[in-house]
Amino acid sequence: MSLVTLTTDFGASSPYAAAMKGAILHVSPTATIVDLSHQLPAQNVRHAAYFLAASLPYFPLGTLHVIVIDPEVGTDRALLYVEVAGQRLLVPDNGCWTLLPGASEIKQVTRLTEPRYWRTTVSMTFHGRDILAPVAGHLSLGLDPNQLGPLANDWVRLSEPLAKQRQNCIDGEIVFADDFGNLISNIPGDWLASAIAVRVDIGGHEARLVKTYGEAAAGELVALVSSMGRLEIAVVQASAAARLHKGVGTPISVVPSLAGSIRDD
Amino acid sequence: MSLVTLTTDFGASSPYAAAMKGAILHVSPTATIVDLSHQLPAQNVRHAAYFLAASLPYFPLGTLHVIVIDPEVGTDRALLYVEVAGQRLLVPDNGCWTLLPGASEIKQVTRLTEPRYWRTTVSMTFHGRDILAPVAGHLSLGLDPNQLGPLANDWVRLSEPLAKQRQNCIDGEIVFADDFGNLISNIPGDWLASAIAVRVDIGGHEARLVKTYGEAAAGELVALVSSMGRLEIAVVQASAAARLHKGVGTPISVVPSLAGSIRDD
Amino acid sequence: MSLVTLTTDFGASSPYAAAMKGAILHVSPTATIVDLSHQLPAQNVRHAAYFLAASLPYFPLGTLHVIVIDPEVGTDRALLYVEVAGQRLLVPDNGCWTLLPGASEIKQVTRLTEPRYWRTTVSMTFHGRDILAPVAGHLSLGLDPNQLGPLANDWVRLSEPLAKQRQNCIDGEIVFADDFGNLISNIPGDWLASAIAVRVDIGGHEARLVKTYGEAAAGELVALVSSMGRLEIAVVQASAAARLHKGVGTPISVVPSLAGSIRDD
Repeated sequence: MSLVTLTTDFGASSPYAAAMKGAILHVSPTATIVDLSHQLPAQNVRHAAYFLAASLPYFPLGTLHVIVIDPEVGTDRALLYVEVAGQRLLVPDNGCWTLLPGASEIKQVTRLTEPRYWRTTVSMTFHGRDILAPVAGHLSLGLDPNQLGPLANDWVRLSEPLAKQRQNCIDGEIVFADDFGNLISNIPGDWLASAIAVRVDIGGHEARLVKTYGEAAAGELVALVSSMGRLEIAVVQASAAARLHKGVGTPISVVPSLAGSIRDD
Repeated sequence: MSLVTLTTDFGASSPYAAAMKGAILHVSPTATIVDLSHQLPAQNVRHAAYFLAASLPYFPLGTLHVIVIDPEVGTDRALLYVEVAGQRLLVPDNGCWTLLPGASEIKQVTRLTEPRYWRTTVSMTFHGRDILAPVAGHLSLGLDPNQLGPLANDWVRLSEPLAKQRQNCIDGEIVFADDFGNLISNIPGDWLASAIAVRVDIGGHEARLVKTYGEAAAGELVALVSSMGRLEIAVVQASAAARLHKGVGTPISVVPSLAGSIRDD
Repeated sequence: MSLVTLTTDFGASSPYAAAMKGAILHVSPTATIVDLSHQLPAQNVRHAAYFLAASLPYFPLGTLHVIVIDPEVGTDRALLYVEVAGQRLLVPDNGCWTLLPGASEIKQVTRLTEPRYWRTTVSMTFHGRDILAPVAGHLSLGLDPNQLGPLANDWVRLSEPLAKQRQNCIDGEIVFADDFGNLISNIPGDWLASAIAVRVDIGGHEARLVKTYGEAAAGELVALVSSMGRLEIAVVQASAAARLHKGVGTPISVVPSLAGSIRDD
């Protein structure tokens, strides 16, 4: 398959994404390049990890994804090839792929060590262009990933803060904010499947639990299960992040409202 | 034809456009996806409507366009398939397509009601990914749009504020601002085709009517017929929006300047 | 080859890049369009020139690149077709291509004067859509560029401020800032190949010369040879532009540090 996606934090006006596209096409002129984003928050590996978890699983099996959020370029951090959730990824070893479904069961990760698949000259600061892009080109032409280098013994894993159920309450926190200002938490949506008459607190504000935006008026602060399958805090047709001045890391809790119950047991 | 364009307000760093691309390609792996914009002002249907009117007509006939400016996702608003101006569109029923040329004469609009062309699981908050994207994939593979659902009885129509000619004056207003800070009005350019010695007022500022930027010096406030065919207020090589602190909704008028005349009759 | 790249300053929410894509595909429906950026700083030809120099050379030979940074649209500035650095470019005559490697030796530049390859109606303000896009479409279909118009006698050339070596010092200046806030100078990296114990001054701040980010701690101000082959000022994992409040035009100098030497002679 000749589909190659690109995800970076290079920004809107820098030449780096363009250079990477050139370097991919130089090796594989008929590859189809699909931009996922080039404006991820700079050097924010955690944002990238949630971004990837929320987008890559929708692609056809075997799609090749190149990710360059690489705050440690120029150190001895490794570059990796990994297959996870049916997708193929080229990534710096910073854990950005480890929140994808199934990542914790992955046993086989390849280190990129074979310079024959790289650009002849490799800069100290731009391995996306000089290593990942040409390697992506070669993979899109059918190169066996085992040729890229040896298996890795270990790799960086991100750990997600886990939401907790205690008695009749759930405690979690905001782990991702989207461009609408919706605040997505680490509380799995299915923990709320049978919730009745609960209220959601975020930093002292109360959000009404709804099934869909349509149950609330424009401007109302609500909580609902987001398209990522997590409990999300939103302001209908506006920005919860701006309204509440809250973001990633803010605690959130779900508690019974009077006679309510989080579980119907 | 396998060309599918995408226009959304998802923002630069959110995973939603990426997820939609995955969902389209999942159904139709060889579709060619063309990004129009993913940074339209959030939930601003009117901006989207002018954006579409200024871009879609330039595409090859039959191109499929998916638009997700969808402030009412999660309500009972419909999703539509419509053919207008020779283009094929998948849109939420919010009127975003109704400023395209010929939209007022359209008699046939299809409601998307057939879940067999959707993702198996449909979220409450992201119909772009779960309905529009897979439907676009199926259409790009040749699906007959009549299979998508029944004809709609009615749909939302945007009305554009109309410019008015009275005696020797024209009254209009700014309806769109571009990223350069050019302010585009609702006054048709051809109303000014024979204008002689007129002046253009915008919020108490006078803009000189020119045929092209080249007639004015850098920094001068001018009025001219924009590439959208409308009277536009611009500052040469700078931003009229920033200079005047004006935007959409600002009244604009064209009046004779001394012995001038808007029409040469 | 049917690969066409697009580089503009149109901005994230304007319809102009979309209209250009439509106009290219209208002529050449199977062209593959690759976005380089649509958010270059508005009307900043110099930024565009560095952007192009840092990206176009990585593309396959013969790739067609359309650039629309065009502050002089509507004047009598020419539109040009030029082959440089193995790439094919369609550009306004503002010098944006003249910092590409080899540009100073170019002898043959074509003026676009043949309206048969343009849109039937050409606006006064959007030659990207009405001239460059359809011409790109025709070129992608195999049109001989000699058909586009006569050779140009002259064209605009940008001159880059040159860094200077004097005695044991190097004086240069910042010529480009990327979205990370890295500040790239006009000092060639190979001038520093044998530097020992030097220090780099930028506006009164001292940056430590390193080979790679990995030699410094997060937050440290460093100087190193960038991926563009120039001396770059950076703050590891942060923004030098924001930290120093410096940008394009800031003087920079490399001087011996005590017993150090810029050259080992």
